[in-house]
Amino acid sequence: MPSISKKGLSMPESPIRKLVPFAEAAAKQGKNIYQLNIGQPDIKTPDVAMQAVKDNSIEVLSYSHSAGFASYREKLAKYYERNDIHVSSEDIIVTTGGSEALLFAMGTITDPGDEVIIPEPFYANYNGFATSSGVTIVPIESSIENNFALPPISEFEKLITENTKAILLCNPGNPTGYLYTKEEVQQIADLALKHDLFVVADEVYREFTYDGVKHNSIMSIPELANNAIMVDSVSKRFSMCGARIGCLVSKNKEVITTAMKFAQARLSPPTLAQIASEAALDTPQEYFEEVNEEYTLRRNILVEGLEKIEGVNVAKPKGAFYCIAELPIENADAFAQWLLEDFEYEGETVMVAPAAGFYSTPNTGLNQVRIAYVLKREDLERAIKILEVAIKEYTSK
Amino acid sequence: MPSISKKGLSMPESPIRKLVPFAEAAAKQGKNIYQLNIGQPDIKTPDVAMQAVKDNSIEVLSYSHSAGFASYREKLAKYYERNDIHVSSEDIIVTTGGSEALLFAMGTITDPGDEVIIPEPFYANYNGFATSSGVTIVPIESSIENNFALPPISEFEKLITENTKAILLCNPGNPTGYLYTKEEVQQIADLALKHDLFVVADEVYREFTYDGVKHNSIMSIPELANNAIMVDSVSKRFSMCGARIGCLVSKNKEVITTAMKFAQARLSPPTLAQIASEAALDTPQEYFEEVNEEYTLRRNILVEGLEKIEGVNVAKPKGAFYCIAELPIENADAFAQWLLEDFEYEGETVMVAPAAGFYSTPNTGLNQVRIAYVLKREDLERAIKILEVAIKEYTSK
Repeated sequence: MPSISKKGLSMPESPIRKLVPFAEAAAKQGKNIYQLNIGQPDIKTPDVAMQAVKDNSIEVLSYSHSAGFASYREKLAKYYERNDIHVSSEDIIVTTGGSEALLFAMGTITDPGDEVIIPEPFYANYNGFATSSGVTIVPIESSIENNFALPPISEFEKLITENTKAILLCNPGNPTGYLYTKEEVQQIADLALKHDLFVVADEVYREFTYDGVKHNSIMSIPELANNAIMVDSVSKRFSMCGARIGCLVSKNKEVITTAMKFAQARLSPPTLAQIASEAALDTPQEYFEEVNEEYTLRRNILVEGLEKIEGVNVAKPKGAFYCIAELPIENADAFAQWLLEDFEYEGETVMVAPAAGFYSTPNTGLNQVRIAYVLKREDLERAIKILEVAIKEYTSK
Repeated sequence: MPSISKKGLSMPESPIRKLVPFAEAAAKQGKNIYQLNIGQPDIKTPDVAMQAVKDNSIEVLSYSHSAGFASYREKLAKYYERNDIHVSSEDIIVTTGGSEALLFAMGTITDPGDEVIIPEPFYANYNGFATSSGVTIVPIESSIENNFALPPISEFEKLITENTKAILLCNPGNPTGYLYTKEEVQQIADLALKHDLFVVADEVYREFTYDGVKHNSIMSIPELANNAIMVDSVSKRFSMCGARIGCLVSKNKEVITTAMKFAQARLSPPTLAQIASEAALDTPQEYFEEVNEEYTLRRNILVEGLEKIEGVNVAKPKGAFYCIAELPIENADAFAQWLLEDFEYEGETVMVAPAAGFYSTPNTGLNQVRIAYVLKREDLERAIKILEVAIKEYTSK
């Protein structure tokens, strides 16, 4: 039998997926499982988006432009304008999800062996994209003690080598929920300019900021124009994860020209989903206000609930819809599996994502879990109750 | 300014796209252009597919399974069964177009520096996927004299090195229209088994075979089960290029397990397009019969028309909807540009794809063009007339 590639063998498995067989077995036993482990919101997709799909009068479902509909890119540019990001439709390539935008960014700016510095914990699939691009992720640890704020710039600087091509930031952060301040974003920009690095900013959670705090985009720093690449997506913004529409945005013409070659090779992003995504930009402002209010309430329930559990330490999220919690256990992997396999409370249990998979440094975050607050409030309250009982039982074993 | 990657710089531009600026300028001047250069069919997408999209009652447009809807994969398995391809839903990963299936296949079986042997001329985007995967394409020339039949196996064997990982076949071929015989497919299978290679078969044009000749899938050879990887797509089959739904199929469990890790990293294929693709499998048989009859007529018009032009030599296609024609000119690139920039016949011109971009060997196929017969018959007749006038004018310059 011919052999699998080294690359394929070293592709990481998603830390969230590892537990799926155990969850399936638990579900088969009739256990009700509260899924705190994935970022699939229960929020309704805006009507205007789904209606546009239903109203389509397409005769031939044909390729779109490789950069996406021109009309969609123009509307996107206006959306960004409203968010203090001054780009034109020429600076935007519509992609198949934020995932593809990240792959295009990696392909455009890195060769195998190049390094990208990323504060950890970080979105676990960055590992997969790095492996498939042959790129080495150089992690820099941020810590739960200060809510996963940006590590000191001097620590970043220590890690820069001749192979460093970029710093990758997720803002607001998945899995941390941390929202970088204007000063932090500026510090990263200054560092990138000093060392001639790209800054790749994954800003898919831009709208999800709480307590009246404003998001600061890497794209809003004029002097960084040639170094900044933004990755974006409709997945969470409009609760349209299944659309698979994102985009890559940069004022650097060479970046766009190069990324377009990757885009042309795969022909075009999905047409139906672009129709939905373009229409979604007409979503009334109240939708976002309601959604944000809902997430704020959920976050408060989650954080307050977790803080009441003995031995639990939570980083208070200011954005996105995740938080990292430190549990009074040694190994969250084993605990998460135990929750599904061996535990139940009144016929129910919870599923959490062990945080170690979000760290690149081995043996880090072993006692942490990522919890997504994408469930409705009463479910979230119930899930916290179950988690409390579970922790008590697990730690008294 | 930070620098673009070597990989990005070496990404090839699509040979079809190079002419686009000239076409846009010609269109601005009011010239009517018959597009013989791209494989975007004018055939109507089956109603059943578009209706399923319109009838959706989705509240939250969520991620699907990373391998695609289970229901779709089960229906696909039955479709393959009817085509003498015995696979189960477990052997199928739904991808974002055939493009992504090819990328997953490359990632699964090759590391940078590995070699894949491909008969040329071949689908130009293979170059892009190879470059982005760091893979070296080793071309083996097939020739217009025998309609681009499989080169002798002894020629393949000469090219096999310790870095050879796979042979890639497009069957029926884009851009050649060649349909491999059962014997040819078996020869490739024997060679792959002898040297422990993968065979990656791009069979997206499976249904488009003419003159009553049957398609022979690489998947129908039982002893090749562990070596065979099929790439498929709904794009041409159902005239749904914009859906961006394809699949990777293999009986090799390690291949599927590995490809799934790439699939999980990008989360899922597009949900709306999967709804359309699943429904499309219920397209009545008459649809395909009508479409094939139409393409047969178009092919005949095209081939007979081209053969009547002095100095033109055509490879008669047995499948897909392309043909390669040799023109009495020296450089098809210059000719194709001239057609758009400097030529018109009664206010009209044609756009063709220079074939050199479909060859990996430099300076090959310079006097050839690829012509897609995706236009309706009267347009095709008119386009041939225009081409005839153009060739006369160009060669008498």
